[in-house]
Amino acid sequence: MILNEIENYLKSKITGHRNYVIPKLWVESHKQIYRDIVEEKEGKIFVDPYEFFSKSISYILEKSENKDYNKSIGILNGENNPEWIKKSIIYGSLPRTTTAFNHKGFGTFEEIDILGFKESGTFLKMIPLLLYLKHFNINVLYMLPVSKSSNLFKKGSIGSPYAVKNPLMLDESYHDPLLDEFNVEDEFKALVEAAHILGIRVVLDFIPRTASRDSDIIKDHPDWFYWIKIDDLATYKPPKIEELPFKIPEEKDLEIIYRNSEVRKHLEKFADSPDKINPQKWEKVKKMDGNILVNIIREFGIVTPPGFSDWVNDTQPTWDDVTFLRLYLDNPIAAKNFVSESQKPYVLFDVIKASKFPGSKPNLELWNYLSNIIPSYQKKFGIDGARIDMGHALPSKLQEMIIKRAKENDPSFVFIAEELEMNNDEKAKNDGYHVILGNSWYSVARREKFYKLVEETALNMKLPFLASAETPDTPRIKAREFGDKLKFLVPFLLYFLPNGIPYINSGQEIGELQPMNLGLDNSVWGKTILPPDDEFYAKLAFFDHYVLHWNSYDNELYLFLKNLMAEREKYKDFIFNGDFKYVFFNYQDGFLANYSYWFDEKGILIIANLDLSWKREFEVYIDKTVGKEINILTAKVWKKEGEIPIISPFNTIKLNLNPGDFVLLKVNVD
Amino acid sequence: MILNEIENYLKSKITGHRNYVIPKLWVESHKQIYRDIVEEKEGKIFVDPYEFFSKSISYILEKSENKDYNKSIGILNGENNPEWIKKSIIYGSLPRTTTAFNHKGFGTFEEIDILGFKESGTFLKMIPLLLYLKHFNINVLYMLPVSKSSNLFKKGSIGSPYAVKNPLMLDESYHDPLLDEFNVEDEFKALVEAAHILGIRVVLDFIPRTASRDSDIIKDHPDWFYWIKIDDLATYKPPKIEELPFKIPEEKDLEIIYRNSEVRKHLEKFADSPDKINPQKWEKVKKMDGNILVNIIREFGIVTPPGFSDWVNDTQPTWDDVTFLRLYLDNPIAAKNFVSESQKPYVLFDVIKASKFPGSKPNLELWNYLSNIIPSYQKKFGIDGARIDMGHALPSKLQEMIIKRAKENDPSFVFIAEELEMNNDEKAKNDGYHVILGNSWYSVARREKFYKLVEETALNMKLPFLASAETPDTPRIKAREFGDKLKFLVPFLLYFLPNGIPYINSGQEIGELQPMNLGLDNSVWGKTILPPDDEFYAKLAFFDHYVLHWNSYDNELYLFLKNLMAEREKYKDFIFNGDFKYVFFNYQDGFLANYSYWFDEKGILIIANLDLSWKREFEVYIDKTVGKEINILTAKVWKKEGEIPIISPFNTIKLNLNPGDFVLLKVNVD
Repeated sequence: MILNEIENYLKSKITGHRNYVIPKLWVESHKQIYRDIVEEKEGKIFVDPYEFFSKSISYILEKSENKDYNKSIGILNGENNPEWIKKSIIYGSLPRTTTAFNHKGFGTFEEIDILGFKESGTFLKMIPLLLYLKHFNINVLYMLPVSKSSNLFKKGSIGSPYAVKNPLMLDESYHDPLLDEFNVEDEFKALVEAAHILGIRVVLDFIPRTASRDSDIIKDHPDWFYWIKIDDLATYKPPKIEELPFKIPEEKDLEIIYRNSEVRKHLEKFADSPDKINPQKWEKVKKMDGNILVNIIREFGIVTPPGFSDWVNDTQPTWDDVTFLRLYLDNPIAAKNFVSESQKPYVLFDVIKASKFPGSKPNLELWNYLSNIIPSYQKKFGIDGARIDMGHALPSKLQEMIIKRAKENDPSFVFIAEELEMNNDEKAKNDGYHVILGNSWYSVARREKFYKLVEETALNMKLPFLASAETPDTPRIKAREFGDKLKFLVPFLLYFLPNGIPYINSGQEIGELQPMNLGLDNSVWGKTILPPDDEFYAKLAFFDHYVLHWNSYDNELYLFLKNLMAEREKYKDFIFNGDFKYVFFNYQDGFLANYSYWFDEKGILIIANLDLSWKREFEVYIDKTVGKEINILTAKVWKKEGEIPIISPFNTIKLNLNPGDFVLLKVNVD
Repeated sequence: MILNEIENYLKSKITGHRNYVIPKLWVESHKQIYRDIVEEKEGKIFVDPYEFFSKSISYILEKSENKDYNKSIGILNGENNPEWIKKSIIYGSLPRTTTAFNHKGFGTFEEIDILGFKESGTFLKMIPLLLYLKHFNINVLYMLPVSKSSNLFKKGSIGSPYAVKNPLMLDESYHDPLLDEFNVEDEFKALVEAAHILGIRVVLDFIPRTASRDSDIIKDHPDWFYWIKIDDLATYKPPKIEELPFKIPEEKDLEIIYRNSEVRKHLEKFADSPDKINPQKWEKVKKMDGNILVNIIREFGIVTPPGFSDWVNDTQPTWDDVTFLRLYLDNPIAAKNFVSESQKPYVLFDVIKASKFPGSKPNLELWNYLSNIIPSYQKKFGIDGARIDMGHALPSKLQEMIIKRAKENDPSFVFIAEELEMNNDEKAKNDGYHVILGNSWYSVARREKFYKLVEETALNMKLPFLASAETPDTPRIKAREFGDKLKFLVPFLLYFLPNGIPYINSGQEIGELQPMNLGLDNSVWGKTILPPDDEFYAKLAFFDHYVLHWNSYDNELYLFLKNLMAEREKYKDFIFNGDFKYVFFNYQDGFLANYSYWFDEKGILIIANLDLSWKREFEVYIDKTVGKEINILTAKVWKKEGEIPIISPFNTIKLNLNPGDFVLLKVNVD
């Protein structure tokens, strides 16, 4: 195993010089391992980095068996289906952020610091973090894109992980200079091995619809891209269609769209690909040093255009860091009559929405390429699953191909759909997905929707959904209105839900306030939530270096989530195999969230007051809940503050819940 | 002249390809020059950059005579004193910001863009900007530090211009890639030549007290720096002196300070300089490739410490990007009895405040070095003046040396003191300065202080002060409370003041809101003034790239300032040679600011209502103002909206001023 090699290498470098500062929480969860190698000075934890990482790895390796951990856990276990996802608990992480830290311990964050430490996240640093994650019973590590991304036309100080320059390569920034003799592939392999040893499956994020503007793919396949004249770039934007409202175009709108004068000007901006313009010259240019796109601009005067929304009259600006891949070699069938023969390959609302407006000549070579991306990660690293970004915009045949190829390699492989509509569960299932993102993060911030999710939607889902208080695209739960209540209430109610897969968004567990991106349910003000003198004020992890607030973390929340996950672990058999019952109260005003799971006379009841301003006093009817008379021998109430037995419990249990408060009521359970 | 060479080079590169976008205002002021070379598309101004810059330079060169414009204007004019500064109008600029612009015209700002254009400011771009400045009758261009600065331990995404890595070299970032064959010294020379041809003098900012942590000087003079052990850096900070309040230390405090246990620990952190630790090794290390400080840390385990305030118990954090120079070879005389013989050279409050706590052995070689910095700029470029940063912290002998050396080369050379106290005018004068910064920017935002400045302080100054509505360190005038009134009122009242040198802070003239730094009269919230979706939200020009809002500039303010400067130009003889008189009204409630200048019966009266909420109706008594009866033939009122003659004016003139409103009243003038 590469993990062994890395362990040995690190051991050989130990000097005992403790000059590498790490967050206290990174060692807190496994104190016994690190007892003798940690030094605390002025509240900072100092270690010899070689000792710290080798100790972490040694501890993990002790748990390993004689297996090839660069196979998926499904394959290692001989699983022939992806059922495991239903029992998973997911930690969602952009590793460059999750493990970013000022390791030199002075001054401000630097990508690589003066002591030679990489302060931005690395795969190596993710390894000890796996132990920290075990504390929350995490068994799936979902990572946002870690493939090679582009720095061109970036929106902040570093490129977005979603601007993929090469989907087959890992991003070099994840290499840790502590591992001189290894490369980023070795390090990712080691991370997957360590995760698999610990029983943690690894799921990655893939983005088949777009590429970075200067994608590595251009070199071999310039014709898989659209091109416009460089002099038109400064005025390039989605054409405004005065005759139409803000909408996804329908077939009947196409005539209007193509007759529009702005569209006609827009179409004129496109050009042939450089290999077509001048094949000889192209052969020379593609061998030139430097950025391929810069060379093409200089030599051909053309450039890949920025992406934009498939909605007509969308006011969002162009997506400057990505460009669309040319999924069809001809124009959309529905647009055939509106485009002249001499029209160069172009991007327009219908072309973007290829799922709805396919062409007649699929770019099969490209489809093959895209379908082989996930298999390459399966073969090299043994990843366990994938999330597909913008899958809904792909031609359905392409989507099918992508899923099929991966499933052929590994029948336990899981696909997560970027599907936010809960009622598209069936469609996603039919498309071959095993989980949808869903919108629990949206519902939890709106009482009526939250109530409906808990009392109706969750139970009836055809596919599991991510039970998430927050996601990389949404506001942090603690930053919501009443966040100091919701940060406890929401995980409590979500993480026991039927069909819910508990999801912790990296940073959520320590009470991080700053969102990672403003994509969903947020406004431009969402990035201004930290005090302005915070080093990371207004920084978004998608576009800038960002260090989680490890040094001023929310200890109450951290302990609560640990305890909550431990409770869930104790009773998970109820969730997966018990009888689901809604709970009967003496009254219900739409604020008393509730559900329960039963094995005969034993049950756990999840009860919460969704009213964040007023308390509720009410009675729980156990018999009516179960549907039969039962003999209540013991009853206990678990809540934020701990567990209390109810003295001589009756069938009717009185509860008094403060605003946003909640209890896990245990009937006849140990 | 290098300006000629650059002109010829640029001309040779003209292709007519207009792909370089510039702000409209850069061509607006001299439309006739650019008439045929500008193309407007979708509100953007496109030029061929070679044509644009060569046209600008040709126009300037047409005005040149047969002179060496790399001499100061004072020397060229045979001036033997710095009196010119009294008649100057200063534009204060950090060129990297003033001339920053997204020249590619799409996407967001990039330091160097995909078309090869440098979007951050360059000396070349400052040349056409001189023409823009002539519009405001600017005759002094004051530039914040343009010497080579460091990127180490930076506070934002780029280094601060005040973290000087090499005071004798210009910062490479100012080189414009359009000028392939030239270097940054050529370009600065050309800028000074162009300025001098246009009658604009050039003043630079120098920082003798500190250097960047990785200063180039270390290589030749490691003993001119202080050193601490690298392992102590993470806990290095100004020691807290519980026994003392927040104060500048006095001699009697030193015993308390040196007995303090934190101070004792602090003193132990210091080390000898690397050349002393191991001279042979040092000879090798100083020849190594890479950053000198990184090499010293690796090989010697020591580092230059960050700076901190000379106030005891100051709560501001360490100044991470700079370190103090070792001005004395021994400890402060006053501290002699408190420090052991074996103490390594150290930094403490008294050491920092060398002006008050000198040692007995001046580091004369360093003093010589520091005194020769300005002369080197005089000889190479012919600069006309200098601002000295933190001059008050220098030993007075060193300050004297610096001033004397420059004056020997050029008796017309001007020194501006970083002196904010108006009543330190005499002290600054005695120290050899010719101007102080003063605090008008502070007074103007506080009605009573503003009134006092106008009605008392200005007239009695022993030295001119910068009449500034804002500075690089302060809030923008437009961002102040009532900023939409103050942005007009303040320049109006300030720019005619006796002893006032009108000062425009780059961006002020177009209504920029974002401050460049939060150093003075601001809070951490000061950087949050733009809308959060602004590309430069929360960016400070001192620490990040910043582009002024040229595309959404305040046209009303721009035109007003142009007109105001034109009015001032017309009547400047009144200001410099007329009789100063305060104005008599029928009442004075402390809100009616006023002053006037007279030549016998001709006068200009500056009158404003400082009340920003309530209007004032009042009468102006001309006779009482002048102190004798005069024959009023004509009277005119000039205000924001234009000029109006008063029909048959009398000795008593009625005025009705809205909140914050003002008039220039002209009696018997043309």
